[in-house]
Amino acid sequence: MIIQPILDLVAICAQKGIQNAILSPGSRCAPLTLAFARHPEIHSRTISDERSAAFIALGMAQQLGQPVVLVCTSGSAALNYFPAISEAFFQQIPLLILTADRPAEWIDQWDGQTIFQEEVYGKHVKKTYRFPDSFEQKDQVWHAGRIVNEAINLSKQFPAGPVHINIPLREPFYPTEGEKFEYPEKPREFTTVSSQSQLSEESLRHIKNRLQEVKRLMVVPGQQKPNPQLQTLLDQLAKSKNVVVVADTISNLQGEQSISLHDHWLANENLHGELAPDLVISFGKSVISKSLKQFLRKQEISHWHIQPDGQAKDTYQQLTRVLACSPMGFFTWLSQNLPNQDSDFAQTWMSLEKKVQAALPGVFESVEFGEYPALYNLLKKIPPFSKIHLANSMAVRYSNFLGKRNQEIICNRGTSGIDGSNSTAVGCTFTTKEPVTLITGDMAFFYDRNAFWHNYAMPNLRIVILNNHAGGIFRLIDGPAKQPELEEFFETRQKLNASHLAAEFGFEYQLVKNQEELEKALANFYEPSLKPKILEIESSSPKNAEILKKVKDIVKRVIEE
Amino acid sequence: MIIQPILDLVAICAQKGIQNAILSPGSRCAPLTLAFARHPEIHSRTISDERSAAFIALGMAQQLGQPVVLVCTSGSAALNYFPAISEAFFQQIPLLILTADRPAEWIDQWDGQTIFQEEVYGKHVKKTYRFPDSFEQKDQVWHAGRIVNEAINLSKQFPAGPVHINIPLREPFYPTEGEKFEYPEKPREFTTVSSQSQLSEESLRHIKNRLQEVKRLMVVPGQQKPNPQLQTLLDQLAKSKNVVVVADTISNLQGEQSISLHDHWLANENLHGELAPDLVISFGKSVISKSLKQFLRKQEISHWHIQPDGQAKDTYQQLTRVLACSPMGFFTWLSQNLPNQDSDFAQTWMSLEKKVQAALPGVFESVEFGEYPALYNLLKKIPPFSKIHLANSMAVRYSNFLGKRNQEIICNRGTSGIDGSNSTAVGCTFTTKEPVTLITGDMAFFYDRNAFWHNYAMPNLRIVILNNHAGGIFRLIDGPAKQPELEEFFETRQKLNASHLAAEFGFEYQLVKNQEELEKALANFYEPSLKPKILEIESSSPKNAEILKKVKDIVKRVIEE
Repeated sequence: MIIQPILDLVAICAQKGIQNAILSPGSRCAPLTLAFARHPEIHSRTISDERSAAFIALGMAQQLGQPVVLVCTSGSAALNYFPAISEAFFQQIPLLILTADRPAEWIDQWDGQTIFQEEVYGKHVKKTYRFPDSFEQKDQVWHAGRIVNEAINLSKQFPAGPVHINIPLREPFYPTEGEKFEYPEKPREFTTVSSQSQLSEESLRHIKNRLQEVKRLMVVPGQQKPNPQLQTLLDQLAKSKNVVVVADTISNLQGEQSISLHDHWLANENLHGELAPDLVISFGKSVISKSLKQFLRKQEISHWHIQPDGQAKDTYQQLTRVLACSPMGFFTWLSQNLPNQDSDFAQTWMSLEKKVQAALPGVFESVEFGEYPALYNLLKKIPPFSKIHLANSMAVRYSNFLGKRNQEIICNRGTSGIDGSNSTAVGCTFTTKEPVTLITGDMAFFYDRNAFWHNYAMPNLRIVILNNHAGGIFRLIDGPAKQPELEEFFETRQKLNASHLAAEFGFEYQLVKNQEELEKALANFYEPSLKPKILEIESSSPKNAEILKKVKDIVKRVIEE
Repeated sequence: MIIQPILDLVAICAQKGIQNAILSPGSRCAPLTLAFARHPEIHSRTISDERSAAFIALGMAQQLGQPVVLVCTSGSAALNYFPAISEAFFQQIPLLILTADRPAEWIDQWDGQTIFQEEVYGKHVKKTYRFPDSFEQKDQVWHAGRIVNEAINLSKQFPAGPVHINIPLREPFYPTEGEKFEYPEKPREFTTVSSQSQLSEESLRHIKNRLQEVKRLMVVPGQQKPNPQLQTLLDQLAKSKNVVVVADTISNLQGEQSISLHDHWLANENLHGELAPDLVISFGKSVISKSLKQFLRKQEISHWHIQPDGQAKDTYQQLTRVLACSPMGFFTWLSQNLPNQDSDFAQTWMSLEKKVQAALPGVFESVEFGEYPALYNLLKKIPPFSKIHLANSMAVRYSNFLGKRNQEIICNRGTSGIDGSNSTAVGCTFTTKEPVTLITGDMAFFYDRNAFWHNYAMPNLRIVILNNHAGGIFRLIDGPAKQPELEEFFETRQKLNASHLAAEFGFEYQLVKNQEELEKALANFYEPSLKPKILEIESSSPKNAEILKKVKDIVKRVIEE
């Protein structure tokens, strides 16, 4: 039997600009599956492992800036979505999650795939809706259409995020013979026309007054998508007003004038005096650099955060003002109203940046082969303006140590899990023809191997695995490295390499164990191919720890020179 | 720094009989990891993928009848536990879930791995506790110990289930040099002394009166662990009182006198008149047979469910009484108080059972090779009194068609997902030296392949994969088989076989494609080995559908003869 409000749902999605759906197979969700698969304007793909399916949808929505639809059957399927949903929530990525369910009367009656699906994502979705389960009343049809409109509008509204509709469905799930799918040509739609928040004249006067006292302004952009206009503006502020812009790699705002190598010196407390700002203005989401966070928490600063909806986090424990406006608008105003800042302050930061920048090539030539220098050399070969996905935890940290990039940097820093890095990169390949390079460790890679278990081509996917046969991070941080349980319970040594996996999925595969092999492998790594390519860089976890320490020591000496 | 209440927690676990913990690596959970790993009486294993870790714990607790501890770090790690937790909740398996968390003040502040962990499992745990995050007050230490006692008691109390303790932890996580781990010798413990519910004399008088009217009593045991004493009692009731016991394979109560092949005739409505009971008494959890459920929903019956806590589900839509007592006690009483039942009724059922039983060998000789006849032949070779894990969805359905087994049958029928079958079987191997045979389809097998990503031996694991390169069930049910989307969106054809996986994990592997190869492979399949063995049975999904239909047709003719 065809359930017309389900066809309407899909038509509303299409009308509101949704172009992609990730479906996972199931019986209960069949009416949704058919309605999405048959709609001419929506591209549906099917992914069997719901954990991967949801991260793939996230990887797509991250690029498209539009909600991607997820459809799964009833029961624990919906729970396998949850890791990606929490990542989407904290990373503010729009998703429309449609979970098929038994009707209310059959929940918890020992009859097939049921759990308590309503509200199951708790605080990790912007809202949960319950779709009507019968349509005898006209009002129920109106309710169904309203829910779909509301849910899509809400998922896009700042801050974007996942929205859940639980959809109870009764048998029969399939059209009877002769029944035709008819999508409404113009389903009822209502949209949200969003406004731009602007600070009042009076607020701006106050802020302007306050800025007269500021001598050392630091701007800290958090995680966000590339924004060339904003980057230019920040570069101008740095150049003409001596503002210090400290930009992690995930900020995608590492302009010519910004500081990007701060992790190399911020642990050195002797320098903190000259480096301390008096005001920090942040915007965007999280930063990676632990030393930056710890540095700012120790200084006596004021901290303003720009966020259009007036919400903010107190990441540096010194938040004094939330500016409920857009960063672009505020920095435009600032460029006209900020007095010149202390030039010594700006020069101190910039001279450290330049010193480290100049030293790094020599430093990496002087150390033996390992994941850190390999990554240094690899990054130079990645095509400009392509996409780089970095897995947690060492891949993104190393990359952040290595400074400015001109590619888009993507990393699941909403919850900082290792559970969906492969799938997020796979989702990205579904949205672009540019090369998508995933740089990952062995733990994150094998954890999410079901990312590749589907039938869709990913010719532009390039995977670089830093395989130290363990969660090498645990050897690089102080506490666990000293425990006898290090190898079994922290690193959890694992002996796999990716050769079997590559053979299984038909990926091109190269394993390298030294600099020469790495260079050879990189020579044609970005040549076009029909299949994804894996470049596995094997190194030893203890040696990586030595190299990291050695690099730190040399850079420390360079800075102190 | 050592957090003494964490050591106390582990000591209380040990004192209360918990012997196993499954740890997943992380930094935030390090104090828990060290405290469990170092405790002399608790066997700790480490599993990197939390989804598998939780199902492995479930597979262990299912066998041990004791809570198994789960330990994970903060963030989305906890969400990856969720599918197994929902399965444990509905299957009533005790688990003690310990999730490390940041302290309350650091939640949602864009600082590392945080989500909203408190209450995150919603209605799918019996209770969530919040562990204290500082211990300056004596009362906080008392609170911590009390929580651990309460949580373990609750997880074991009928109906058993998962209980969650969220544990906020502050740095430093590791002992400083010279600090010693000292577990309390006698941590404070309090236990629940559970009672046995017994029906009152008056209730029993009423029931006895009511039973005078009953002529056709059917007993339907739901999913439960084997219980030889109860099985003997049910056999006696069947033999001496003409009670009809209809037992699915997951009931583990398929005695000599019980009916087990009911799926072969219950779809035939012409027979319903002679087969209809007037009273159904059920106990245990769910049943698999859809035709049994549909048959009972259509009859005019009374339905009594026995459950010690007085809760029940209305699976057949005709529940009239919940008997808040133990099945063993009630059936003992019943064997002395039930009038003889209609012998024609019992004989009709038993003659159908015998007819089908006698016909099956010939039926399977007459059809060509496919997963159904292969399974029929395989089941005969599985060592008696060993453990069989059946995956959803076709493995357990086929097995249920094939009648009585003398092995313990285990299947995740709490939520009926495919997401943790491998891991559950792996957990089982950690508790027994008997062969553990996992019978699974290709979808369930590849879905949960991270079950094998660890360093522990599983010499007694035998895996049989019914590989039809698809979710073959969708071709076997009416609706989807007729849709043009069948192969892409329902079956989701997938081309893998398990040879690469076997090579990767070092498992023994055989692929068979016909009866001869199957027989050869089975000849030494249960010979002892150091490694797990995979037997992959490849068949074609369309042919399997034909075979199933043919078997049904032949059996139908046999019944009508």
